Amino acid sequence: MKIETILIATPMHDHMRALIEEHRALDHYTLLFRHPDDVSESDVTQADALVAFKRPGNVDMSRFKWVHSLGAGVDKLMNGIDWPEDVLLTRTVTSFGERISEYTLSYLLRQTQKHAEFRRIQVLKEWDFIPPDPLNTRHVVVYGTGEIGSKVAQTCDFFGMTVTGVSRSGETKEPFMHVLTPDKTDSDWEKSMQSAHLIINTMPLTNETQQYFDSEFFEACHDVLFINVGRGESVVDEALLDALDQGQVKEAVLDVFSEEPLPQAHPFWTHPGIEITPHISAITTAEEGLACFLDTVGQLERGKALPNQVNTEQGY
Amino acid sequence: MKIETILIATPMHDHMRALIEEHRALDHYTLLFRHPDDVSESDVTQADALVAFKRPGNVDMSRFKWVHSLGAGVDKLMNGIDWPEDVLLTRTVTSFGERISEYTLSYLLRQTQKHAEFRRIQVLKEWDFIPPDPLNTRHVVVYGTGEIGSKVAQTCDFFGMTVTGVSRSGETKEPFMHVLTPDKTDSDWEKSMQSAHLIINTMPLTNETQQYFDSEFFEACHDVLFINVGRGESVVDEALLDALDQGQVKEAVLDVFSEEPLPQAHPFWTHPGIEITPHISAITTAEEGLACFLDTVGQLERGKALPNQVNTEQGY
Repeated sequence: MKIETILIATPMHDHMRALIEEHRALDHYTLLFRHPDDVSESDVTQADALVAFKRPGNVDMSRFKWVHSLGAGVDKLMNGIDWPEDVLLTRTVTSFGERISEYTLSYLLRQTQKHAEFRRIQVLKEWDFIPPDPLNTRHVVVYGTGEIGSKVAQTCDFFGMTVTGVSRSGETKEPFMHVLTPDKTDSDWEKSMQSAHLIINTMPLTNETQQYFDSEFFEACHDVLFINVGRGESVVDEALLDALDQGQVKEAVLDVFSEEPLPQAHPFWTHPGIEITPHISAITTAEEGLACFLDTVGQLERGKALPNQVNTEQGY
Repeated sequence: MKIETILIATPMHDHMRALIEEHRALDHYTLLFRHPDDVSESDVTQADALVAFKRPGNVDMSRFKWVHSLGAGVDKLMNGIDWPEDVLLTRTVTSFGERISEYTLSYLLRQTQKHAEFRRIQVLKEWDFIPPDPLNTRHVVVYGTGEIGSKVAQTCDFFGMTVTGVSRSGETKEPFMHVLTPDKTDSDWEKSMQSAHLIINTMPLTNETQQYFDSEFFEACHDVLFINVGRGESVVDEALLDALDQGQVKEAVLDVFSEEPLPQAHPFWTHPGIEITPHISAITTAEEGLACFLDTVGQLERGKALPNQVNTEQGY
């Protein structure tokens, strides 16, 4: 693939330009650095590649040969359009798995190590033996068995937890002990949800994952910690609120929302069982995003296989 | 060694008796189950082995052939007496390393994942990108390179942290990247303390570790998270309070204290930089304690080496 001009459209364009100059990289390309709101018709005409988090304005993606997503997800580039089949789409694959593992583990450990209980008795100056729960007594269900889900599972496995994966295919995969399909009528699925202490969603947004976590889903759960680091649109918000009130979900930790920033009036902000983080569980620094982009350019130039190429029919 | 009668002196004696009967274990021994306060002269005369957390009353330890500690530490059995050299001393070795790893990691992750900051902005309904700190940017110093310290180091290593050990010998040992001696005049020691984000004490109480963490120690630290899961007597309480007020220590998480329960009037209870847990980081369930005790009995009967034998000169 012959690429000459690359349009880099991100709010971080100044930082990106400085980093690329510092790395003395991409000298043999013409680079256009733009804020997404300032992309012009002439930029699009000139460029044969686009690097961005989301589609700038309503630009016609068929005008590029290659599009590279600065995020792990590509839904903000693909949503609402039919992807032109001859346009290569790649995405950023970096230390998301590590970051999301640490994020999820921090909330699980906070619960098993009973931070809130110890805080409560410290205020009262009480000396009560409250035993923490060892992690090897926990059953974790991870939705999504890709890069991120697998790294989360590997971390859980290190601590001796029981780890079940859920994927479209349901195919066995290390380091998951079992892998199920997301079929809510399957009795194995129901048993797994009932015994789960922690359920983590790492799935991308696709037609199948849209509104997957609904009231039927939560009815199978019991006193679970639910963590969403996938996409907000996979959760039916009202169903989650009901599940919290009925004790199917004990606590929800949410990093992603159908609308971001989460609107001020949304009931999630003030629910006592919900912890909100502003989409930071897998935050990508400009350095990390650039490193992955430069790797991809290098692989393209040498005609190598691209491990971060998106299957545009599956959407990930 | 011929053992016929075992005195089991613990506040959990009823539970212990029930568990031993359930396991149908130790049928060929005479077992005396007692609360430590109820141990009589005749019990001591009759028994040739003692199983306990601490010395019951002021019993003469030379009257037993074998003493087994129900805890990992033996200071409450040995303190204030010269240990009779022909009395075998063993201690409980169980999943302490795993438990203490999870305990310490929970407080480190709470900090790197910025739980307090996210709580604060949630109350204000603010959507601020606050990036968590990846664990692989953290430098951890672990005092004690034994069973527990090594397991803590292995956990830190899994997450890509830099791990320095401190031991009496300073001998290199996997999985520590470096091992130092506790010599406060050594320039390598000083550099390590200055760059440390987290310092964990896992050391037993000995003459050398008594009051080791003093003002000279804390002066070498900078904005550190200090976790004590070893023994409270290793810390000079006033020095730690000063270090917190001067920012050498950012936060202290304390599970052990010179006097336990921690007296109501102690300033640790109410200091905003101190988190208190009531000596639970390596809590041993009766099941775990019994399993280790039965293993030790089996090894004694078969004349095997005892991996949990205490070097009574070193005190661990």
